[in-house]
Amino acid sequence: MNEITHRIGIKSSPEKIYELLTTDDGLSQWWTNDVSGAADVGSIIKFRFNGGGPDFKVTELIPNKLVHWKHSGNVPEAWMGTEILIKLNNEGEQTFVRFTHLNWKEPTDFMAHCSMKWAVFMLSLKDFAETGKGKPFPDDIQIDHS
Amino acid sequence: MNEITHRIGIKSSPEKIYELLTTDDGLSQWWTNDVSGAADVGSIIKFRFNGGGPDFKVTELIPNKLVHWKHSGNVPEAWMGTEILIKLNNEGEQTFVRFTHLNWKEPTDFMAHCSMKWAVFMLSLKDFAETGKGKPFPDDIQIDHS
Repeated sequence: MNEITHRIGIKSSPEKIYELLTTDDGLSQWWTNDVSGAADVGSIIKFRFNGGGPDFKVTELIPNKLVHWKHSGNVPEAWMGTEILIKLNNEGEQTFVRFTHLNWKEPTDFMAHCSMKWAVFMLSLKDFAETGKGKPFPDDIQIDHS
Repeated sequence: MNEITHRIGIKSSPEKIYELLTTDDGLSQWWTNDVSGAADVGSIIKFRFNGGGPDFKVTELIPNKLVHWKHSGNVPEAWMGTEILIKLNNEGEQTFVRFTHLNWKEPTDFMAHCSMKWAVFMLSLKDFAETGKGKPFPDDIQIDHS
């Protein structure tokens, strides 16, 4: 299996970042402006980009430390069976976010595309937490001209 | 083994991007402003960041299509044995760059840090090719406060 893994250090508290990862309002500040369903373990979060997009089931939550989702449904197809694991680790003035999108069957061009997109969304998460302004879809940084 | 892999689409020609990957002047526009030694297969490129930094030996070049380096020396230690493979693929008005840093022994925090840094340097490569202004070290996007 293959995985995408990124680490970023944000000058913010684990509590604030955890909120940005576990609530509709928080998630909509950095990934996409259309998020619904974020709640406790067992909830299904719907992320939408111009109407379509993936669902994730929340499978584990440790407040201010860990968020674990499993992909749900069949869009995009290459994400079926994949999981998102996000761990928070406070070190002094910053909180490190270790993001992993795991269980990819193949390291395809699409996985490499998603790796870049997750990186720009991590920058968006950092920007929102530090400045109050992120770049969620549709204002996200473009990584190609497709 | 583990790898970092990113894909980005740049509105530029394979010829121009290949030059940015294979010459001291080109590499200094997007990765670090201190690069020396870039030449044909067998040459060793020295990338420096405030004096220190990695060396890479050029092991394969296919003009306008492929660049392959093997890490040389022992800095940083976690990069020993790793390789960089960059493939270019022109599709209409854009050239896709598939960047892979392969042969990591472990998917450590440092690898996840490097994954983010490579992503911001890919954005820097895209920016330079499209606008004439990249963000090489020491003007690179910061991903933490360390």
